[in-house]
Amino acid sequence: MANCNKELLRQVRVLKPKLEHWEVAPEQQVAFAADSTAWQGYAAIGVGPVAGVLNRPFAAGERFLLDFGEHSVGRLKLAMRTTGKPADAPVRLKLLFAELPQEIAEADRPFTGYLCRSWIQEETVTIDEIPATVVLPRRYAMRYLLLEVVGTPDRLVFDDIRFIAQSAVGRRLPPPPPGVPERLARLDAIALRTLRDCMQELFEDGPKRDRRLWLGDLYLQAKVDRVSFRRFDLVERSIALLAAFTSEQGQVVSSVYEKPVPAPGNWLADYPLLFPALIREHTQAAGGAEFAARYYDTALRQLEPMRQSWGDTPCPHSEHWAFIDWSEKLDKTTALAGVYLFGLRNAAALAELLGRESDRAALLAEAEKRSLRLRRELRDPRTGLFVSGPDRQLSYASQIWMILGGAVPPEDAGTLLRKLASAPEAIRPVTPFLHHFLLEAWAVAGEFEQLFRHLQEYWGKMADCGADTFQEVFDPDNPYRTPYGDVRLNSACHAWSCAPAYFIRRYRDRIPG
Amino acid sequence: MANCNKELLRQVRVLKPKLEHWEVAPEQQVAFAADSTAWQGYAAIGVGPVAGVLNRPFAAGERFLLDFGEHSVGRLKLAMRTTGKPADAPVRLKLLFAELPQEIAEADRPFTGYLCRSWIQEETVTIDEIPATVVLPRRYAMRYLLLEVVGTPDRLVFDDIRFIAQSAVGRRLPPPPPGVPERLARLDAIALRTLRDCMQELFEDGPKRDRRLWLGDLYLQAKVDRVSFRRFDLVERSIALLAAFTSEQGQVVSSVYEKPVPAPGNWLADYPLLFPALIREHTQAAGGAEFAARYYDTALRQLEPMRQSWGDTPCPHSEHWAFIDWSEKLDKTTALAGVYLFGLRNAAALAELLGRESDRAALLAEAEKRSLRLRRELRDPRTGLFVSGPDRQLSYASQIWMILGGAVPPEDAGTLLRKLASAPEAIRPVTPFLHHFLLEAWAVAGEFEQLFRHLQEYWGKMADCGADTFQEVFDPDNPYRTPYGDVRLNSACHAWSCAPAYFIRRYRDRIPG
Repeated sequence: MANCNKELLRQVRVLKPKLEHWEVAPEQQVAFAADSTAWQGYAAIGVGPVAGVLNRPFAAGERFLLDFGEHSVGRLKLAMRTTGKPADAPVRLKLLFAELPQEIAEADRPFTGYLCRSWIQEETVTIDEIPATVVLPRRYAMRYLLLEVVGTPDRLVFDDIRFIAQSAVGRRLPPPPPGVPERLARLDAIALRTLRDCMQELFEDGPKRDRRLWLGDLYLQAKVDRVSFRRFDLVERSIALLAAFTSEQGQVVSSVYEKPVPAPGNWLADYPLLFPALIREHTQAAGGAEFAARYYDTALRQLEPMRQSWGDTPCPHSEHWAFIDWSEKLDKTTALAGVYLFGLRNAAALAELLGRESDRAALLAEAEKRSLRLRRELRDPRTGLFVSGPDRQLSYASQIWMILGGAVPPEDAGTLLRKLASAPEAIRPVTPFLHHFLLEAWAVAGEFEQLFRHLQEYWGKMADCGADTFQEVFDPDNPYRTPYGDVRLNSACHAWSCAPAYFIRRYRDRIPG
Repeated sequence: MANCNKELLRQVRVLKPKLEHWEVAPEQQVAFAADSTAWQGYAAIGVGPVAGVLNRPFAAGERFLLDFGEHSVGRLKLAMRTTGKPADAPVRLKLLFAELPQEIAEADRPFTGYLCRSWIQEETVTIDEIPATVVLPRRYAMRYLLLEVVGTPDRLVFDDIRFIAQSAVGRRLPPPPPGVPERLARLDAIALRTLRDCMQELFEDGPKRDRRLWLGDLYLQAKVDRVSFRRFDLVERSIALLAAFTSEQGQVVSSVYEKPVPAPGNWLADYPLLFPALIREHTQAAGGAEFAARYYDTALRQLEPMRQSWGDTPCPHSEHWAFIDWSEKLDKTTALAGVYLFGLRNAAALAELLGRESDRAALLAEAEKRSLRLRRELRDPRTGLFVSGPDRQLSYASQIWMILGGAVPPEDAGTLLRKLASAPEAIRPVTPFLHHFLLEAWAVAGEFEQLFRHLQEYWGKMADCGADTFQEVFDPDNPYRTPYGDVRLNSACHAWSCAPAYFIRRYRDRIPG
């Protein structure tokens, strides 16, 4: 079973943030029109002002649909009264909160998901005492609200409808650096809204579904936070909660629950290998020596299980599943080897920061030795591209992680990536998580025109599809793509998708004119 | 608009009772079998112990049905966990609470009620953090619970299911007087359970639907309370809340809301005429001179609007609807005149208690004068029975209220009532409210064998149909009779039905051997 570090859990309690709250008023009444040119086939069409909903009497069976104009996370506040005499019965409402039009437009489609259907943000509430101003107790992630009056004595009047939004960082998004082109500035804002809405009492992966802290997601969130909100306390709180739970081999847990009581979630092969980089980057940006010293041993220990199981065999093995990307057919062996190398090199850099020279030398020596063998055994001699698994599969994932793990010198990185473009059989990235690392690989190659071109193509396309936060899964050729059996379970606001703000801010001097 | 007496509302606040709470565990799992011999066609059949529900894993879509063995009012407590790893999604449950099997067995029948469908005790709840012990926030009146697991990560296990019952008087029912036959003792217990479950922060009419304080119901509840729980504070609190709201003519409101803020409800013709009797009876039992003095003027004022509108015409008129009984075809004129006489004579008795001799004399003189005229004009010379309205309609309601109003001497009462038995066209009582007054009329006649025979026939039949509280509407020939368009809206626990405890305790020496 997992080990639990009580001192780190104490830090989690001490670092609990006070959330900021703000009110979001609905912007307009909308209808969702079938539209084959719109994302997932539905366009939100304005059908009237909010004033047409407020202060007018509703009978049982009537419903309306509101657009709050912006994705946010929080609770719904309703001020209600009934017409005429005092209300002689409870009021019952049915509500459906949605991030995207499709979730409401196809609400009646049978549920086909593999995950729990309680993630659908539907609610039936009964209010016994009317008139009343109530704040519904549960939290939702939403832009749209469908509200149906199921039962009411006399007619029901809404005097006010507000969404009480919340996050650790307040509503305001840090403005983009001066001189950033408008199109990129727009992607920057969408990315930061995504991150803002995931920054609750921890860095959540998605505030609609899962709502959990994941090590892989946190690694990317911390990068973006460092160039925007700079809530280092929340990063440290999240690190402490993850590091509080380790396996018998010392692996940090890959997902963790804070409530009802702190508890370990999933154990993955690849996420713990990102831990040394997370600690190194945070140390350099904010944490300092004390922070680094606290996590140094843990960071190094993340490499041990794979070092042992890999041994002298050609490729790494793990008792745990490697995520890498949501792709059923992807062979992950080579990519996983690259993530391990990435872990080694970041651990070496962390050792250097702390003056641990012998650790540094040993880690780098191992990285060089394994890199050499990987190049020798996994590189197609004809194309120079890395292959993966017994079928010698070609993929973006393998090249990206060989580059980021330093299995090839930076000057070869651009060649590898460009060669992929002329290999249509190469398996492409699916999630924004792997797309983020593709951008990192272009950065290693120093090819910023390619980096920003891909950023604009992939994230820009999401924005063109009407996103005001970046999605968990985005396949422009298949808007209904889902790893969960029902696209309504996909998260439209997912932290691993907020890369644009990082690259725009980190490499603002390299943005092509 | 209504006048509002602030001093009485202050008393309502001061007299707010502290509720008692107790836990009710489910008794068994049941199924509702179609059974033409059972009340409303459904029998509850035991299908297994509660242990078969607790500590076993449930998947989404599974459901179970529990019998808690006794009607009670309160909140549901659930202790839940999921199997295996920590719960990675919310749990969603659908619940249907019912007083009677039919409410669950016919839950899918389209709703046809005239009242608000939010009275149906259905609920969908989502619990975000599991494991958890939750107490659902709303109050229900129930004996049966249908619980369906809509969504759960892994399997859901209930470690405990309890109902946290509540009333102003605790669970225990005062035992019947010694020597009461077992069958009557059973009716006594059912009646007191009914009253107990209606005794919340006020005397409610029915804790499932309406949940409101009504003057007519309170008059009967106070009678039963006086010979059982003796919570005179709650009677005085309820009187204060009703009397706080009066019409321009000084009429006390007939129904009233306490929450969200005290407010007047319905204005009826007949209920205020019961106010002098309510005050007189409470004065004699508990209230004393100070209480009587506080309400004396108000009691006398209840007669004035009708005195003026009646004047010298043969029958009373009222701008308000008279309840008398739920019967579409009943002509209520003569009965209403009887209720007025009843009010006059009780006001006279109250005047006597306070030594207001001239008031007493005037009230009695008016009662005698009107009684004489009513006997002369409304009595069928052939049968001696009172008739009502232009069609000279014959009904129990008319005879009952002419007797209780003293329009005939007590020695004629038995004759009137017995003659009804051989008049099949006479409209019979529908609600237990009017059945109560029928028993009172037999008591006036001094015919206790008839009184207890009717009590055993009517309330005994309810008990035989499996009631563990007495219903709002009971027509043994039509189990689906409802004044609300859908029998699911009927209340199975209604305070105006708890007569047996009053008559058994008040006239225990007159119970036929």
